Amino acid sequence: MNHTVEQLIDRINLEIENLSLSKSPQELYEPIEYALSLGGKRIRPILTLLSCNLFQDSIEEAISPALGVEIFHNFTLLHDDLMDKSEIRRGNPTVHKKWSANTAILSGDAMQIIAYQEVCKSPSNSLTEVLTVFSRTALEVCEGQQFDMDFEQRNDVTVDEYIEMIRLKTAVLLACALKIGSIIGGASERDANLMYTFGEKIGLAFQLKDDLLDTFGDEAKFGKAIGGDIVCNKKTFLLIKAFELSNDSEKGEISEWLLKQDFARQEKVDAITKIYIQRGVKELCEQKISDYYKEGLDALYAVDVNMLHKSELVTLSEKLMHRES
Amino acid sequence: MNHTVEQLIDRINLEIENLSLSKSPQELYEPIEYALSLGGKRIRPILTLLSCNLFQDSIEEAISPALGVEIFHNFTLLHDDLMDKSEIRRGNPTVHKKWSANTAILSGDAMQIIAYQEVCKSPSNSLTEVLTVFSRTALEVCEGQQFDMDFEQRNDVTVDEYIEMIRLKTAVLLACALKIGSIIGGASERDANLMYTFGEKIGLAFQLKDDLLDTFGDEAKFGKAIGGDIVCNKKTFLLIKAFELSNDSEKGEISEWLLKQDFARQEKVDAITKIYIQRGVKELCEQKISDYYKEGLDALYAVDVNMLHKSELVTLSEKLMHRES
Repeated sequence: MNHTVEQLIDRINLEIENLSLSKSPQELYEPIEYALSLGGKRIRPILTLLSCNLFQDSIEEAISPALGVEIFHNFTLLHDDLMDKSEIRRGNPTVHKKWSANTAILSGDAMQIIAYQEVCKSPSNSLTEVLTVFSRTALEVCEGQQFDMDFEQRNDVTVDEYIEMIRLKTAVLLACALKIGSIIGGASERDANLMYTFGEKIGLAFQLKDDLLDTFGDEAKFGKAIGGDIVCNKKTFLLIKAFELSNDSEKGEISEWLLKQDFARQEKVDAITKIYIQRGVKELCEQKISDYYKEGLDALYAVDVNMLHKSELVTLSEKLMHRES
Repeated sequence: MNHTVEQLIDRINLEIENLSLSKSPQELYEPIEYALSLGGKRIRPILTLLSCNLFQDSIEEAISPALGVEIFHNFTLLHDDLMDKSEIRRGNPTVHKKWSANTAILSGDAMQIIAYQEVCKSPSNSLTEVLTVFSRTALEVCEGQQFDMDFEQRNDVTVDEYIEMIRLKTAVLLACALKIGSIIGGASERDANLMYTFGEKIGLAFQLKDDLLDTFGDEAKFGKAIGGDIVCNKKTFLLIKAFELSNDSEKGEISEWLLKQDFARQEKVDAITKIYIQRGVKELCEQKISDYYKEGLDALYAVDVNMLHKSELVTLSEKLMHRES
């Protein structure tokens, strides 16, 4: 039986509501329930379930590990928001803002343990393999966050370094979600690795699309202010590539904006966006997204399963690529 | 073959040095190596290994899980120090002081994952059982830390609440260390649970001894200033019990000291210590330590293993009870 994305989202949200978290101490568990209730697209658990469903009819064995991946993802958001001092997440105050920094630290720590508890409910014949890929990925996500923070202090980040950072911070968890599902579904090692590659490439495309929307999105559809990355000097593909391709005068202009402490937000966003357009980096980014997307789909197509069964994953990938928020 | 505590400490320190942590990003992994190199008594991994050794000759299968428990313990110290704003740990600057709060958060998160990686190297026939007790315990340690922080804001903490807090924050990890070792060693369920109880009771005694030393220790031997708990109004057994047993005038005096913002440190320590002595809470605490110690040993004695094999555990417990630092 093939499950649709809509069915799976409902199932995951139901399972998250039904997680029987302890109630005491309330100060520890309430922020966890809050963080998990903020929603989001639930992409990672859906990938785990769809991936499992590629190789076997029942997705039941993959439910808990899928939840584990989603809980882990939300834990990283919680601690990242604290480290980045972000005050809003999905339109709501972040945990450290609503409660305190200490609450965010400790409830986050507990969330990571709860994530492991769910992943540990994988069927015993795949437990070791699932835990190995999960732990390795979890560490890589920390590495990605560390590189991301390090890059804030540097002005010489290369495109390759940036791609490696987003691979670690974002792509490998999508890859892990898919690989775990396929392992539980009984995929061959070759197919499980192809699913990992599919997730990794789609993940890179997904993050580059995020960066693109942050500058070139439609504010009404994007859901938050356009230009956030530009304002905070984030070394995205767009900025790094634009600087690389710029002439001396544009390089000087970019450097000036990077150093300026006092500025009108819109003026800075407009000025940098103009250089992006002049240097054609929007198109370069779109090309890169499309390349990664294609590489990802190629890996999925190579998986030894009837093409018809892959349609939900293909449709979901397409939606992620063409999204406007 | 019976291993001695001295041999095991050397082995554990060697294994910690040889942990093949990734080198990049250095900003993530260097603080982890630092935190693990600060030493400490390595009590928890020793308990895991001695416990395993009770039931089988070889301790090799228990090495990685023992390291996992020790890494987890050091992770909790790292995040606790950040939450408590402690600047010194084992005579050295804490991670958040030496680097930054963000470093402490992220390196701590990575340490927790590394702890799981080591615990996951348990033999496959005991993996699920080991992970179940480890994760449950890890969550309980978070709960204990939360209660500890909550108690700072309260003046009506009862002795029972305090005991439950130190059970969660300190005792259950010692219990877990022992239970994991015994599971890997092939103990029966009854024996594994007895080892857990042994650790839990010894852990309670251990923490109460810590509190006692903080007020009544010999500063030269204790290694840090006497009276730290009194100065920061920590609701220890001593304080709660003293308040409970005090007459109105002593109650008033204690309350005044709790509220006072500006005071001479030694004056406060002397005044509160005097009430402790007047109300006999030092002896009550010593009695409680001795009761828990005896309950712990009774559990150990009930384990279905030749008494001779238990001598290292008995000696270690005695040392922990009679320590002066």
